[in-house]
Amino acid sequence: MKRIKTNQIIVVAIFIFGTIWNQNSFGAPKNNSQTPNFIIIFADDMGYGDMGTFGHPTIKTPHLDRLAFEGQKWTNFYVAAPVCTPSRAGLMTGRLPIRSGMCSEKRRVLFPDSNGGLPENEITIATALKGAGYSTACIGKWHLGHHSQFLPGNHGFDYYFGIPYSNDMDRIDGPDAQVALTHPKIDYFNVPLMRNNEIVERPADQTTITKRYTREAINFIQQNKEKPFFLYLAHSMPHMPLFRSKEFENTSLRGIYGDVIQELDWSVGKIVNTLKETGLDKNTIVVFTSDNGPWLIFREQGGSAGLLSGGKGGTYEGGMREPTIFWSPEIIQPGVIAELGTTMDLLPTFAKLANVTLPNDRVYDGYDIFPVLSGTGHSKREVVFYYRGTEIFAVRKGAYKAHFITQPEYGSNIKTIQDPPLLFNLNVDPSEKYNIAEEHPEVIEKIKQVLAEHLQTVISVENQLEK
Amino acid sequence: MKRIKTNQIIVVAIFIFGTIWNQNSFGAPKNNSQTPNFIIIFADDMGYGDMGTFGHPTIKTPHLDRLAFEGQKWTNFYVAAPVCTPSRAGLMTGRLPIRSGMCSEKRRVLFPDSNGGLPENEITIATALKGAGYSTACIGKWHLGHHSQFLPGNHGFDYYFGIPYSNDMDRIDGPDAQVALTHPKIDYFNVPLMRNNEIVERPADQTTITKRYTREAINFIQQNKEKPFFLYLAHSMPHMPLFRSKEFENTSLRGIYGDVIQELDWSVGKIVNTLKETGLDKNTIVVFTSDNGPWLIFREQGGSAGLLSGGKGGTYEGGMREPTIFWSPEIIQPGVIAELGTTMDLLPTFAKLANVTLPNDRVYDGYDIFPVLSGTGHSKREVVFYYRGTEIFAVRKGAYKAHFITQPEYGSNIKTIQDPPLLFNLNVDPSEKYNIAEEHPEVIEKIKQVLAEHLQTVISVENQLEK
Repeated sequence: MKRIKTNQIIVVAIFIFGTIWNQNSFGAPKNNSQTPNFIIIFADDMGYGDMGTFGHPTIKTPHLDRLAFEGQKWTNFYVAAPVCTPSRAGLMTGRLPIRSGMCSEKRRVLFPDSNGGLPENEITIATALKGAGYSTACIGKWHLGHHSQFLPGNHGFDYYFGIPYSNDMDRIDGPDAQVALTHPKIDYFNVPLMRNNEIVERPADQTTITKRYTREAINFIQQNKEKPFFLYLAHSMPHMPLFRSKEFENTSLRGIYGDVIQELDWSVGKIVNTLKETGLDKNTIVVFTSDNGPWLIFREQGGSAGLLSGGKGGTYEGGMREPTIFWSPEIIQPGVIAELGTTMDLLPTFAKLANVTLPNDRVYDGYDIFPVLSGTGHSKREVVFYYRGTEIFAVRKGAYKAHFITQPEYGSNIKTIQDPPLLFNLNVDPSEKYNIAEEHPEVIEKIKQVLAEHLQTVISVENQLEK
Repeated sequence: MKRIKTNQIIVVAIFIFGTIWNQNSFGAPKNNSQTPNFIIIFADDMGYGDMGTFGHPTIKTPHLDRLAFEGQKWTNFYVAAPVCTPSRAGLMTGRLPIRSGMCSEKRRVLFPDSNGGLPENEITIATALKGAGYSTACIGKWHLGHHSQFLPGNHGFDYYFGIPYSNDMDRIDGPDAQVALTHPKIDYFNVPLMRNNEIVERPADQTTITKRYTREAINFIQQNKEKPFFLYLAHSMPHMPLFRSKEFENTSLRGIYGDVIQELDWSVGKIVNTLKETGLDKNTIVVFTSDNGPWLIFREQGGSAGLLSGGKGGTYEGGMREPTIFWSPEIIQPGVIAELGTTMDLLPTFAKLANVTLPNDRVYDGYDIFPVLSGTGHSKREVVFYYRGTEIFAVRKGAYKAHFITQPEYGSNIKTIQDPPLLFNLNVDPSEKYNIAEEHPEVIEKIKQVLAEHLQTVISVENQLEK
C-alpha cells in the first residue's frame, strides 16, 4: 500500500472497513511495476462526425485516424450528460452527475459566478490513481468548480494548467454575444489561465492555447518516464469561440472549425510521438473522446454529429455519443467496437489496471471495460441513461432506445412528454429516423422497468450548479 | 500495337487520324510490360455512410477499412447519375450519360422490356484496355442493355457472368411489390443469370450470388497472372431485394442490410488475398465504389448516406457522392483525398496507365487522376454536374454547389425551380444545411456560366432508355 496523504483518506477508508469493490480479473497486471500510464484527451464540443475515421469528408485527422486503426475505435461510446460540467463530473467520478449534484436544468453548467463544484468527498480518477503512486496532471479545461476547494489540486491532481471553465465565459462589455463568439478576439473573453491555484494570464491568449496545453502535456510525460502517471488533457477547443495557432489558420477546407480540429489532431500526434520517443507507448493507454456533441446553433462554426441526430444539449444520439478511440499498441487489441461504453467506465477500468480498490460506500455507474480493450471479453454495460439536467429523457437498453421526453437542445423550455415513448433500434437505425414503438411494446415495458430500478438508486444531494 | 479485332476499330481510328488525346504524363508506366491490372468493385445502392471508415457505427467492414487506410480514401468522389443505368454508362464510357442517350426521366433505367442499350460506337474501359492487350471480364450486374448487341461481350469484355440488370426485375405474379421486396424469396424475381450470352440459371439463386461472383472474380484473376487484366466486378447487392449467403445470416448488428454489406466486405478480402497470394498486389489497382446513393424509401433495408442529405434518385449529395477507395500498395500514395473525382475519371486514368490513346472524336467528361493517386499532383476536376434524367438539377464548382431544380428522389413529379438557386459550401457544410445564396451571388453567376458552357457541348442523341 502507498504512503497515505490526507486527501486520500477516502481511499484508505475501504481498507479500514474491509469492504472490497467486486471486480472481475480479466488480464489485469499483477503488480504495480507493470501498471500502465493513462492519458485521457478530451475535446470540447467535438461532434461524432468530426474526424476522418468517423466519416468527415474534409476535416483531416491523420493522427487520430491512425490511432483508431491501430487501436480500438468505439462507435457506441457515451458521455454522462449532453453538456460540459455534468459530463466532466461523470468522467471524473465514474458516477452519473445526479449523484454528485453536478447537474441542473436551470443552470446547465458552472459559470464564473457559481459557488459550487465537485464535492470534496467525490473520488476522482486522479484521487484513485494518486493513491496507487501515480503522478497526476490536469491540463486544460476543468469546469468542475473554480473556487480553491474544487480545483484539480484538491481532487487528486499534482499539477494543473489551464482555463478553469469554458472559454466563452467572463465576456467583457463589447460586441453582442453572437458577434463576440463568431468573430472573436482574445480580449472579448476575460478568462483566466491558471497554473495550479494561481492565475498566470488574463485574458488567456486562446490563439496559442492548444499549443501550450500540448507543450505542458509533453513536459509532464517526459518528467514521468520512471513513474506511472495519469494525464488528463482536456482541450478548451473546439468550444466556441474558436481559436487556433497562426500555423493552422486556413489549413482546413472545413473552415475555422476544421483548422481547430486539425490543430487538436496535430497535438495528438505530438503526444503519441513523445510516447514513442520515450518508449512509454508500450505501457500507456491513450483515450480520445469529447465531452458532448457539436454546438449546432453555431452552424458552420459548430461541429457535426455525422449520421446521428441532434447535438450538444440534447438527448438524441448526437448530443451524447462521442467519437472515441482507445490506443495502446501492446495492450489493446485493435478493432472497431460497437459495444456500449461510457466515460464513466474509465474510472473502474483504470482502477482495476492500477490495482486500486474503490470503496463500496457509494453507487458507481461505470464498468471495467478492460475485457473489451484486451479482446478477452465483452462489455457488461447494457444500459445508457440520457439525463438532461436532473431528469432522464431517454434510456438505451441493448439496441433499443426509448425517448420518454424530448426537447430542443437550446432555446426552448417546452418539453414534450412522449407517451408512448419513441422507440428506436440504434444498431439498425443509428439516425433515430424510424419509430418502432408500436411494434415493440414489450421492449418499452422492459426499459420502463430498468428506469424504475435505476431511479431507486438515486438519492437527493445538494445541487452544486444552482449555488 | 496489339492485334486488331473488329470491335476495336474505334481505338484503331485514332492512329489513322493521328489525333492524340492530350494528357499530362505524371508517373505513367513507360511500357506495356509494366502496365497495371485494374479491378473495379462496384456496389449497387450502397450509401456514402455504409462503411466503417465512412462512419457507420455497426456495419463491420474490416477489409474495406484496411484498404482505405493503406490506400486512398476519396471523400468527394461522384457518380455520373443518381440511378443505376446512367451511372454505369458514365463509368464505362468516361462520358456523361446524356452523351450516349443512356438517361431519361420517364424511364430512369433499363427494364426487361427495354430495347435500348449502350450504343455500339461507345468506347468502354474494356474496349480501350482490350485494345492494349488486356484480358477483360465483367462479373455481376451489367444493366447497359440485355439484348445481345449491348451485352458485355460486345463492349470489350472477353467474359461475362452475372445478372444483366437489377435483381428486383422480372417480378412474378405473387405478393405485392413492397412485400416481395422486403420479404423476398428467390422465385419472386425471375431474373436470369448469364454466362457470356447464355442464360445459365433462371431465376438466379440470389442467396449465393455474392459468393459466386467472388469465386468467378478469383478464377479470372488466377487465370491472368501472366497478362494484364481488367476486372469489372459489379455486385448485384445491396440493391433490394436483399439476399446473402447462409454464413452471413444474422452476422451484423445492422440487420440484413449489414449482413449483405459484410458479405461484400468479405468478398473484397478474398479478392485482395488472391492478389497477395499471386503477387499481383504489386501491380494491380483496386477501386471500390457504388453506383448511387442508398435507397431510402426502404427504410431499415435501405442504406445510409451518413452525414449527407438525400439518397438514390436525387441530386442532393447522398444521391451521387460515393464511399470510394483506391488501393495499390506500390502504386498509390496513401491518404484521405478530398479532391473532386468521379467514376468518369476511371477511363482516362486507366487508359493513360495502359498507354492507350483515346480517340478525340467525342467529348469526354473524365480526367486522368493518376497525379492524385500517385501523390504527384492535383485533380484537374473543378466541376460536377448533377443530372436527373436528361436535365441538370445542380452544379458543383470547387467548394460550391448550386441547386437550380429540386425534386424528391421518388414518388413525386413536382419539380421546384430554385430561383435564386440554393447555394451550399460543401467543404464546410457537406450536409447541405446552410443556404448561402444571398451572401454569394457572384458564385452563382460563375456556376451559371459553367453550366451554359457545358450545355453547349451537349448534342441531341437517340434516347436508349425510352426505346
